[in-house]
Amino acid sequence: MTRKLYSLCGADRARPFSPHVWKTKMSLAHKGLDFDIVPIGFTEIPVVEDGATGLVPLLRDGERLVKDSFEIALYLEQNYPDRPSLFAGAGGMAIARFVEGWSQTTLHPALTRIIIRDIHDRLDPVDQAYFRESREKRFGTSLEAVAESGGASLATFSEKLEPLRHVLKFQGFLGGASPLFADYIVFGAFQWARIVSPQRLLQPGDTVTDWFERCLDLHHGLGRSVTAA
Amino acid sequence: MTRKLYSLCGADRARPFSPHVWKTKMSLAHKGLDFDIVPIGFTEIPVVEDGATGLVPLLRDGERLVKDSFEIALYLEQNYPDRPSLFAGAGGMAIARFVEGWSQTTLHPALTRIIIRDIHDRLDPVDQAYFRESREKRFGTSLEAVAESGGASLATFSEKLEPLRHVLKFQGFLGGASPLFADYIVFGAFQWARIVSPQRLLQPGDTVTDWFERCLDLHHGLGRSVTAA
Repeated sequence: MTRKLYSLCGADRARPFSPHVWKTKMSLAHKGLDFDIVPIGFTEIPVVEDGATGLVPLLRDGERLVKDSFEIALYLEQNYPDRPSLFAGAGGMAIARFVEGWSQTTLHPALTRIIIRDIHDRLDPVDQAYFRESREKRFGTSLEAVAESGGASLATFSEKLEPLRHVLKFQGFLGGASPLFADYIVFGAFQWARIVSPQRLLQPGDTVTDWFERCLDLHHGLGRSVTAA
Repeated sequence: MTRKLYSLCGADRARPFSPHVWKTKMSLAHKGLDFDIVPIGFTEIPVVEDGATGLVPLLRDGERLVKDSFEIALYLEQNYPDRPSLFAGAGGMAIARFVEGWSQTTLHPALTRIIIRDIHDRLDPVDQAYFRESREKRFGTSLEAVAESGGASLATFSEKLEPLRHVLKFQGFLGGASPLFADYIVFGAFQWARIVSPQRLLQPGDTVTDWFERCLDLHHGLGRSVTAA
């Protein structure tokens, strides 16, 4: 097999957790394409493939090297057009960017605060040092202070999911009756939290919980191949 | 012409303001379909077409009567398939529901608080009484108290637009290089505020402002056919 997906993990190499890598894992499975996972820590990212990237995911597909989960989805759609579509047309491709925007600017900032300590505690020491320094620089405060603010983020987290609940009144997935890349974008965020944190973000009886469970079942239960923290 | 669009307005019948009707006006123009506007006040909605609806928009297209802006968009897409698409495929159709969800649960609650007094003051007396009673029941407090909370909503309104700004880094419209129904969903919300309120919600230099101006230019400047408040 020539396809390799570089996947971020902590001290336990069998538990890749990056939300963006999970988007790509689901995308590859959606296309029915085999791949090998190459687990790497934060500080290994700039080293692999001759310094090809500063961020994961990074996909090697034979001669091609593609980075960024959305770019990879576009690449897969273009290069494997005979496989199931990740976008179901030009409209789905365009509007998936809005889902990405919502996930990145609404879910991720809240989740980061909620699970930042859980992430830190699961990393190798060398990655812990990098993680602390880079995140403290980003937030302009200590990792402990960011984690402290996670309580307030957790308390209001469920409210942020209203746009999803609206969709789920009409259909089983963001993509309609079956999932598209738009689903994997949001799935990645929840899967990240599921793998690194024992905190419960989704409640029983919530339609978003049901949707997430359906996503975990997809592609022969790919999402369940890593257990919940 | 047999096509009639019932459109909510205030005392000035030439200034229809309903966000949902604007979605449909843009949808009809997108499809190149002529229509007559039938202006009605809040209290006239349950009376027209033998009590066919409690909400606008309501579209009469020959023998057919269709309500709800999303339902109308689906109806137009199905019945006028040779005209420009409002969804650009099944994916665009499905994910447009997410844009609707975001607009309804994020933009509309904030906008309602910000412009509730502006709306009230532009209505006929009979509609003012209905509006006050129904909104006070919905919010569980006086119209004045809701309006009072609008200041805080206005202060944080710009932050809510981050998902849009993300999209606009990549493309000119939610629909991609050209607009789709997803754009009209969000446009409707801003056009509602533009028509009823002199409050400035969008700032110069914001990519969302530029996108809104592009939307106002669409379909021979249809959005500009009603001036800003």
